[in-house]
Amino acid sequence: MFLFFSTECSEQQAILSPEESKHCVRVLRKKIGDEVLVTDGKGRLIHGIISTLSKDKTIIDVKSIKEYPPSEKSLHLVFAPTKNISRIEWMMEKCVEIGIHSFHPILCAHSERKVIKPERLNKIVLSAMKQSQRFHLPKIHELITLNDFIRNIDDSAKRILCHYEPGNIQLKDIDWALENYVLIGPEGDFSPEEIALLKKSNFKTCNLSNSRLRTETAAMMACATFNIVS
Amino acid sequence: MFLFFSTECSEQQAILSPEESKHCVRVLRKKIGDEVLVTDGKGRLIHGIISTLSKDKTIIDVKSIKEYPPSEKSLHLVFAPTKNISRIEWMMEKCVEIGIHSFHPILCAHSERKVIKPERLNKIVLSAMKQSQRFHLPKIHELITLNDFIRNIDDSAKRILCHYEPGNIQLKDIDWALENYVLIGPEGDFSPEEIALLKKSNFKTCNLSNSRLRTETAAMMACATFNIVS
Repeated sequence: MFLFFSTECSEQQAILSPEESKHCVRVLRKKIGDEVLVTDGKGRLIHGIISTLSKDKTIIDVKSIKEYPPSEKSLHLVFAPTKNISRIEWMMEKCVEIGIHSFHPILCAHSERKVIKPERLNKIVLSAMKQSQRFHLPKIHELITLNDFIRNIDDSAKRILCHYEPGNIQLKDIDWALENYVLIGPEGDFSPEEIALLKKSNFKTCNLSNSRLRTETAAMMACATFNIVS
Repeated sequence: MFLFFSTECSEQQAILSPEESKHCVRVLRKKIGDEVLVTDGKGRLIHGIISTLSKDKTIIDVKSIKEYPPSEKSLHLVFAPTKNISRIEWMMEKCVEIGIHSFHPILCAHSERKVIKPERLNKIVLSAMKQSQRFHLPKIHELITLNDFIRNIDDSAKRILCHYEPGNIQLKDIDWALENYVLIGPEGDFSPEEIALLKKSNFKTCNLSNSRLRTETAAMMACATFNIVS
């Protein structure tokens, strides 16, 4: 069944935004009295009945609510957006399907892309959450510099840097913590100064694969690895 | 360093096709005497020197050859091409980067796409092999019906069907054989008759993920799982 998203959910009602309402009326051709599923993106799955319906606002009367707890361990993916934004859009869609907690786009010395469109990326992430029937909406953080990212990272989290060096541990053999930040290099890789800074900031380097992966493949592979072995 | 591909390799010379030669001359602006790397896609990495150069034919004199054995265990991915072909093209590119032996496109009862363009797919796979610095070119088999696929599959290979059923083993916990055929359902899933036929044909069902994955995400996730745990 199609899953709607609403930021206005109470114990009694869920209200759909104009965008979700349009989809409800025009694409899915729902009618008053129809049963629907709604999530608030915070772990709640609401089963309800449409009581008011228009292309601007839809009200759903709640019949039952089921709470899904967040996964015990969280993956925070830190990456430099690629020059060709569609590669990052694709990667984000796939990571949401596979399972991820948040995205941290960063600016590195070799970043070719300095701007992203958060609205478009939020739409992709929301759509992937609904499509894969997940009930926790991953957060997309603001694009900030690598330096600012390092300054703000919380102290208790595990810090992992995917950067090939002979003799490194493999990502799949990492001892995962509850919160895990995994860094993927930009298309031109991190600069030697950035690598030095990250190591000084307690990032543990690890190898992701024996072959050379594109940055978006590396990000997706890191997410797959976390979900398979953590 | 850029990796060229050649189907005409001897102990003495590697000859580049017109397409590879054009890239060599026009894009990379190589000159006679330049050192280059060539693979035959069968595990050989050739280090050589350009001795003849034109946009139609390039001859490389071999200086040294290194042989890379194929991986001990092989993954053969069996999937129904999606209606939107770009999703399959993307999946094949990613699987080549991550590591795969062959692709088996099949026609199922719910297949929406009945035709593929092998030439275009071969180009994508070749390009991904070169980009990820791999030396074995994955084979793309002809699009055949699920019935014909089952009739032709070799007896000694492991047969795995990714099809969610409560209580199934997870794909990551499979005991992999040397040759492994992994089947991914089409967008509308396999029909009940197809599932029954596959089970009768000794396909072991397993679960890939706890959430609902698109067909191309499932294929890519199966490939990632094989490479991470096998």
